[in-house]
Amino acid sequence: MFLKVKTSEEVLEILKGFDPVGVETIFIGDALNRVLSKEIIAKEDLPNFRRSTMDGYAVWAKDTFGASENLPAFLELIGEVTMGQVPTDIVTPGKAIRIPTGGMIPYGADAVVMFEYCHSLNEKTIEVSHTVSLLENVIMPGDDFKKGVVIFEKGTTLRPQDLGILAGLGIQNITAYKRPKVAIISTGDEVIPIDQKPNPGQVRDINSYTLSAFCSQAGAIPINLGLCKDNFSDLREMIAGAMETSDTVWISGGSSVGVRDMTMKVLESFDKTKLLVHGIAISPGKPTIIARIGNKAVFGLPGHVASAMVVAEIFLNPFLSRLSGEAGAAQDNHSYQQAELERNIESASGRDDYIRVKLNRREGHILAEPIFGKSGLISTLVEADGLLKIDRNTEGLYKGQIVDVMLFKPFR
Amino acid sequence: MFLKVKTSEEVLEILKGFDPVGVETIFIGDALNRVLSKEIIAKEDLPNFRRSTMDGYAVWAKDTFGASENLPAFLELIGEVTMGQVPTDIVTPGKAIRIPTGGMIPYGADAVVMFEYCHSLNEKTIEVSHTVSLLENVIMPGDDFKKGVVIFEKGTTLRPQDLGILAGLGIQNITAYKRPKVAIISTGDEVIPIDQKPNPGQVRDINSYTLSAFCSQAGAIPINLGLCKDNFSDLREMIAGAMETSDTVWISGGSSVGVRDMTMKVLESFDKTKLLVHGIAISPGKPTIIARIGNKAVFGLPGHVASAMVVAEIFLNPFLSRLSGEAGAAQDNHSYQQAELERNIESASGRDDYIRVKLNRREGHILAEPIFGKSGLISTLVEADGLLKIDRNTEGLYKGQIVDVMLFKPFR
Repeated sequence: MFLKVKTSEEVLEILKGFDPVGVETIFIGDALNRVLSKEIIAKEDLPNFRRSTMDGYAVWAKDTFGASENLPAFLELIGEVTMGQVPTDIVTPGKAIRIPTGGMIPYGADAVVMFEYCHSLNEKTIEVSHTVSLLENVIMPGDDFKKGVVIFEKGTTLRPQDLGILAGLGIQNITAYKRPKVAIISTGDEVIPIDQKPNPGQVRDINSYTLSAFCSQAGAIPINLGLCKDNFSDLREMIAGAMETSDTVWISGGSSVGVRDMTMKVLESFDKTKLLVHGIAISPGKPTIIARIGNKAVFGLPGHVASAMVVAEIFLNPFLSRLSGEAGAAQDNHSYQQAELERNIESASGRDDYIRVKLNRREGHILAEPIFGKSGLISTLVEADGLLKIDRNTEGLYKGQIVDVMLFKPFR
Repeated sequence: MFLKVKTSEEVLEILKGFDPVGVETIFIGDALNRVLSKEIIAKEDLPNFRRSTMDGYAVWAKDTFGASENLPAFLELIGEVTMGQVPTDIVTPGKAIRIPTGGMIPYGADAVVMFEYCHSLNEKTIEVSHTVSLLENVIMPGDDFKKGVVIFEKGTTLRPQDLGILAGLGIQNITAYKRPKVAIISTGDEVIPIDQKPNPGQVRDINSYTLSAFCSQAGAIPINLGLCKDNFSDLREMIAGAMETSDTVWISGGSSVGVRDMTMKVLESFDKTKLLVHGIAISPGKPTIIARIGNKAVFGLPGHVASAMVVAEIFLNPFLSRLSGEAGAAQDNHSYQQAELERNIESASGRDDYIRVKLNRREGHILAEPIFGKSGLISTLVEADGLLKIDRNTEGLYKGQIVDVMLFKPFR
């Protein structure tokens, strides 16, 4: 079966064909970075009473009109608001009640004068040297959120402050999309577990650990299934098992043509398989395979970890966002850093090149240094701070050009 | 006791006086985003044998010199390399051995010719139409990392690919700084648990949930101690308990002068207390208190969650990095987004203002829209995508100016 190499855009579009993996109810204390599967509506006003935003005196605003340093107003102090309590005193014209920040505005008062503008003449009298306008330093019920309004849309990823608002509204549990479960399989007859000493010709399993951590970083749940030998029946059995327990299956390995062909045959041997992608017009990462088995995506990733990571950053990151239900998912959600390119980079047209770059600060500038090296090296990925895309319609980038570097983590 | 308000820079410098919280040994599968407390040295070469980076034929490079489409070289095919095995055949002049990507280069061979440049004439003979140079398509032992070199410095935060390299070198456990434990106390007589319905004058506990999630986001371990009434003995007892179980204590609440004074008195009542900061020249967040009790930092944060969050982003984020042992910690580690300011912003000099801003995409530009509102509102923090700093030596920013917005999370 022959499929033509797909562009990045085509692959991202194809990945939009997979749906979020289901919903569950969770406590807000566990909901950081989780994605709402239903909008949240305020069931009450927040705040639900008139509050002072300052330490001061609750007054009739009118009583302060025209008051100044030279012409202060004099008010009778009749009491004090206690935090958390409904004040029982009533503010009538000419009266004032002491109020702390966050205190409830007493009945009758319609503004708060800050302490800084007041002076106690005696226990019963204050001098006000400042005019306050109606509702100055007062928050009204619903000023934050009115009962009935949508606070968060479906698809919102919850940040710390968002959880705070939910707490404030007494919303203890929310309905969120489940975190996707990702089965990770590392193939290759040359790959051994990390607790073994490799003989010549053998290498330890780098990919399982890299891809598992990548999943955790993206908020997904990695299920590290370990190693699989390069033969049809072992691989088929492992994938069949993975399909039962996970939402997507990532197989890495098989950089040689022979092994890739075998992986393809294994994928095609399942019922309801549709081969979606067989090769992507990117470098590194070209020999990527994507199949749909039932409603699940199975990825055959390059065996070389640097290539697998590029595919992960460009395609699996938005794919996981999509499975997690994020609004606007299957789009890029990396941080970028602008930098000045340190040297020319040539690039073949017809494919998107992803160059590993290191960022260096020099005299207040941020410079992007391309990291070159033999294609099989993995140290380049460790040295790099991020990836620089050279579009397939571009023949290269020039030294001095300002570029946007996709960051592996915030650069400082 | 009178202390003058400190600048942001002074506070960040003071926070450098606290040390990382200890070390522990952890499995690399659990080490994502953890910080190395010791450098890592390669104990062996990676790779530890000569590998092919391509599917092709292992040859004597010399045999291909001058070979081209018109003048191919003819080589005798004497065998095939099996993945994970030491090849037993030896490549002598005029011979070739088939080799898959990642396979071990057979003895005698010094280059690999890609399949694409070869043509099988019969089972025993291949035609090579391309010249390869010495070691072309070959990775040598130690090309990634040579035995004895430092792979990661102390203070490195481990990314997915870094864990991959550790796996590749057979390093299963590492010594990392512990994750700091943060005790969180929410004070205020008006604050009630989130599962209760507030009477007028009462509010639910927003801060505990916001600050706990903030800690988790930063990789620390929040210990949510819940609510404390505004009285000396309750607060003192709670802080004393928190000092036993955590590495730092964060008390939020007490926006009124009276309560802040009480918090100060409680902190001063401990042995070995040193009051480090009483007020910071920022807005919001000015009434922040920082004390050292023994070797631990205790923070009195503003009661208003928006103010507390600004203090958290600006000071607690680098403080947690520092406790976590990150190299270059107590520095900023946010992501920033350049944007065009949508309107003028005035700012008082003498303090750093942190304006909440929303980012909007319009016609390919990213615009930063300041979110204004009464100071007591928390909805502004929910609407915002990040914070915009207006330095205390600046009187304001102009519409159209390009600004760097400190992001709460990556913007897309």
